[in-house]
Parts: sequence; C-alpha cells; structure tokens
Amino acid sequence: VPFTQQVENLSHESLIRRASCLVTDSANTYLSQTTLALVDALTQYAKALHTLISLQKRYIASIGKLSPVEEDSIWQVIIGQRVEVSDRLEECKRFESNWMNAINICELSAEAAYNSGAEHACTATKTNLQVAQSKVEEIRKISKEAEKKLAETKAEEIQRMAEYASSIDIHDLEDVPEAYLRED
Amino acid sequence: VPFTQQVENLSHESLIRRASCLVTDSANTYLSQTTLALVDALTQYAKALHTLISLQKRYIASIGKLSPVEEDSIWQVIIGQRVEVSDRLEECKRFESNWMNAINICELSAEAAYNSGAEHACTATKTNLQVAQSKVEEIRKISKEAEKKLAETKAEEIQRMAEYASSIDIHDLEDVPEAYLRED
Repeated sequence: VPFTQQVENLSHESLIRRASCLVTDSANTYLSQTTLALVDALTQYAKALHTLISLQKRYIASIGKLSPVEEDSIWQVIIGQRVEVSDRLEECKRFESNWMNAINICELSAEAAYNSGAEHACTATKTNLQVAQSKVEEIRKISKEAEKKLAETKAEEIQRMAEYASSIDIHDLEDVPEAYLRED
Repeated sequence: VPFTQQVENLSHESLIRRASCLVTDSANTYLSQTTLALVDALTQYAKALHTLISLQKRYIASIGKLSPVEEDSIWQVIIGQRVEVSDRLEECKRFESNWMNAINICELSAEAAYNSGAEHACTATKTNLQVAQSKVEEIRKISKEAEKKLAETKAEEIQRMAEYASSIDIHDLEDVPEAYLRED
C-alpha cells in the first residue's frame, strides 16, 4: 500500500512531527561533528602532554650533566612543547563549547520530538547523547591522567633540582676555598 | 572558481560550522511549522469565541420571549459551542508547547551557529524568531480581545437575567392576587 503512504495526512501535527525529526537529525549530525572534533582535540592534547612529560623526564635525567648551551637548547624544546600543550588545551576548550551547545540542542530536540509524537526520533537522539557523552568521558579520563603524570614529573623535577642545588652548594663550598687557595 | 569551492577545507571547524547550519535550517523549519499551527489554532479559537458570543447575544435578546422547548434548544447549541471553544483552547495549548520548544531550539541553535562561526545563519535565525514571535503576539491579541468580549457578554447576560427575574417577580406578585381573587 505505498500509495496510501504517499497521501499521508498533512495535518499540523504530522507536519510538526516531520519537522521535529529534521531537527533531531541535524542535531545528531551536529553532535557527531562536535564529538569527533572534541575527541580529536583531547587526543592531541593528551599526546602533547605525553611528549612534554618525556621531554621533562629526559631533562631530569640529565640534570647536572649538561653544558649551559645543551641545557639552553633542551629548555627551548620544552618551552616550545609547553606552548603546544597550551594551544591544544585552548582547542579543547573551543570544541568543548561547541560540544556543549550540541548536547543542549540534542536534549531539547529529543524533548521536542517526544512532544511532537516522534518517539523514535526522541529515543534515537537520547542513545546518541549517551554514546557521545561516554566517548568524551573516556578520552577526558586519558587526558586527566596525562595531566596528573605531568604534575608528578614536575614535582620530581623540583625535587631533583633541589637535590642538585644542594649537591652544587656542597661542591661549591668545597670548591670555593680551593679557588681562594689558588688565588692566594 | 567553482573548483576551489569544492575543495574547501574539511577541518573540524568547517565541518562543525556546516553542521550548525543544518541545525539552524531545521530549527527554522520547525519554527515555521509550529508557528503556522499555533497561529491557525489561535485563529480557530478566536472564531469559536466569536460564534459563542453571537449565540449568547441572541439568547440575551430573546430572554423571556422563548418557550421552554425553544430555550432548551438554544442552550444545547450554546453548550455545544462552549465545548468547541474549550477544544480549540486545548489545541492552542498543545501547539503552544510545540512552539515554545521551537523557540528554545532556535535560540540555542542561533547561539551555536554564532559560536561555530556561522554568523549569517545566526542572524537569519534571530530574524525568523522575531517574525514568529510578532505573528503569534498579533493573533494572541485578537483572541484575548475575543475572550474579553465573551466575559462582557456573560456579564450582560447575568444582568439581563436579573432584570428579567425581578420583572417576573413583580408580574407574579401582580398576578397572584388576581388568581386568588379569581379562585375566590
């Protein structure tokens, strides 16, 4: 009975229901695009954090073993990577704002679909919302772990620097008198 | 340069911007459908009110001039019309809820479009919102006026009924003694 389907009624209710399905469709597309972008940005951010962590670890391992020129060049790389991390974080924040817009629009459009009698579109949108939220949650956990690791590395660096500084002090104290002696 | 346009970049920003335009497009369609439905429902409601008003006026004009059977039949029509008015009002409320959903989705999608860099889609949606709101405002004013007129007609009916009742009382008081006299 395809003909019967074609002459389906054009009541306001039916037209509103169809239009509300257009809204859930596009809201779902918008949510997909913003989720992909946010997941990608969070992944890049976590990667940038891991690169920074390994640079800092390499620096920590070489404390006291580098010439000032070598030390300066490793610091240039670390500073560059810190800029990269903060750029990636900015990108996350930007896409996070788009993503939150998409989440809100999806929630409203699911409600509108339900009120318009488009239960299927409502259910599908709610499922999409859950999938998107758990995807983002998962990748957020990874970047939070990387942030925690970086903080640990920084603490380690401070400790190593303190150890090194005190070893230099002792060394200097040992050296200085010798120098004095030599000057004499 | 149509070829240059075809190879436009597929960055997340550009895909999000396109997707947000899909959302404003469908939100605008949804707003149009719900506005049409609500304006239509409010128009039908105002019409039903005007029919009820003229029925009540006809009844008022005929108070005391009808036989019980005639009075009963005019009341059947008035009661039927009151049911029609309340059905129309229910329809208005139902479409009003869809319309409010559409207004909220349009506002959010305009904001999302702006945040995604789709300024034109944002502006177009805001214009549509204003047009829809002023259309509904206009027709709401008409139905509010009809409601006010109905209230006035009811007040008039109560007054006329009171006048008629007191005229019957006087008539009855004048009649009763005569009847008594006749009985005697």
